[in-house]
Amino acid sequence: MKIDLIISADYIKDKIIEGKTVVVIDILRATSVIITALNNGCNEVIPVLTVEEAFELSKHSRKDYILGGEREALKIEGFDFSNSPLDYNKEVVEGKTVILTTSNGTRAIKGCSSAKSIYIGAMINAKYVAKRIIEEGRDVVFVNSGTKGQFSMDDFICAGYMINYILNESSAEVSDIAKTADYVYKNNKDIYSFVKDATHYDILKSLELNKDLEYCIKKDIIKIVPEYKDGLIK
Amino acid sequence: MKIDLIISADYIKDKIIEGKTVVVIDILRATSVIITALNNGCNEVIPVLTVEEAFELSKHSRKDYILGGEREALKIEGFDFSNSPLDYNKEVVEGKTVILTTSNGTRAIKGCSSAKSIYIGAMINAKYVAKRIIEEGRDVVFVNSGTKGQFSMDDFICAGYMINYILNESSAEVSDIAKTADYVYKNNKDIYSFVKDATHYDILKSLELNKDLEYCIKKDIIKIVPEYKDGLIK
Repeated sequence: MKIDLIISADYIKDKIIEGKTVVVIDILRATSVIITALNNGCNEVIPVLTVEEAFELSKHSRKDYILGGEREALKIEGFDFSNSPLDYNKEVVEGKTVILTTSNGTRAIKGCSSAKSIYIGAMINAKYVAKRIIEEGRDVVFVNSGTKGQFSMDDFICAGYMINYILNESSAEVSDIAKTADYVYKNNKDIYSFVKDATHYDILKSLELNKDLEYCIKKDIIKIVPEYKDGLIK
Repeated sequence: MKIDLIISADYIKDKIIEGKTVVVIDILRATSVIITALNNGCNEVIPVLTVEEAFELSKHSRKDYILGGEREALKIEGFDFSNSPLDYNKEVVEGKTVILTTSNGTRAIKGCSSAKSIYIGAMINAKYVAKRIIEEGRDVVFVNSGTKGQFSMDDFICAGYMINYILNESSAEVSDIAKTADYVYKNNKDIYSFVKDATHYDILKSLELNKDLEYCIKKDIIKIVPEYKDGLIK
C-alpha cells in the first residue's frame, strides 16, 4: 500500500488520486458536520459548490431538506444552519436530506471525482476510516481541504493520526508529506497542542465557536465512514 | 512581514510569489552546489532546464565553463561534474562559469521569475539568508524544490530553520505551512533526526553519497547569499 497526502483543495491533481482511495478531511468543520449529520440519522448529504444550487435542489420540497453551510465561517442567508456540527442533532436531521455548501470541504470532495472511492474523514471518526483503509489495502491519498486553498494545520494532524494508525497496524510506502503528518501527530497526540496555533482555529475562536472546536478535535467518537458516490454522501 | 512556503516546484503559483522575496531551497543538492561554487570563486552560475541548453551555451568557449548537474541523481554524459557540492572546489571553479541543470532545483529557480528577488538558500548558508530577509523586511516565500514535484522533508526542515531564525529576531505573520516547518525544525535542531527518514536522503544514501549528505546538512558554514537575476546567479 502507498500512502500520500494533498495539502489543500487547490492542489488536487488527477494524476495523484486517479483510481485510488481518497479520504477527504476538513475537520473545521465540513467533514465533521457530514459525519455528525449522517450519524444522527439524516438520509444523505449532498455537497454543492454554490448557494444557488442548494436553493434549486430543495425548492420543490423544502421541508425535506436541511440547508447548511457557510461563507467566511458564517451562516448563509435563507439557510437553516451554518457549519456547526452541534446543530445537526437527531431531532433536526433524522429522515431529512442535508444540502451542504462550504468554502473548503465541499470543494475538496467535488474535486476528487477521479478517485476510485471517496471517504469522508475527520478526527471524530478517524480510527474507523483508518480501519477501512487497512481492510481495503489499496493505495490511499489523504486530501486535506485546507483553508482558502492553503495548507491547514488542523487537517494535517488529522491525516497524521489516520496515517499513524495505519502504520501501527500494517506496512506501507509513505511519501515525505505523509511521513511529516505522521511525525506531527506522534508529537501531538492530544491534537490541541498543535491545532491551537492553526490560523483556522484562531478564526473560529474569534467567532466564539469554542464548543465546535472542542467537539471537532475529539477522537473516534463516531464509528461510521461516509462515502461520496454519484453526488451523494451516505 | 508575512512568511509563506511552497512545498515543491510543481506548486509554484505566480499569485503567491509575485512581487515578493523568494528563497529557493534544494539542499539535496542543487542549491548546496550553487552556494559552494560561488563561495569557491566561480564567476557566476547559470541554471538551465535542459542538457541541450548547457551544451549550446558553452560551445564557443568550453574551457571557460564547468558543466554540472544530474538526472536521476547521476552525472550527465559529457558534463564535468554531477550534482555533488564537494566537486565544486576552488581549484576547479575559480574564474569559471558554472552551468547547472538538475531535476528539481534549477526548475524551481526558473519558475520563480515573477518574484521581486530570488535568493538561493540551503542549510550551509541558512542563517545568512535569514538575516538578509530580516534586513529587507519584505514578505517572503520559501520555495522548496522538492523531489520529482513532490514535497521533500529535507527542504522543509531547512526552510523551518530559516523561519525559526527570523521569528526569533523579529515578528511576522506566518502561514500554517510555514508554522509547521518551524515546528519541525524546533523539534529536530540537529537536522539529521528528521532528514534521515526523507525519501531523497535514502536515494542518495543508496548511491553511496554519504559525504554529500553530511555536508549538505551542516548549518551556516558559508556566509554568502547568492541572488538569481536576469538568468544568472551571483
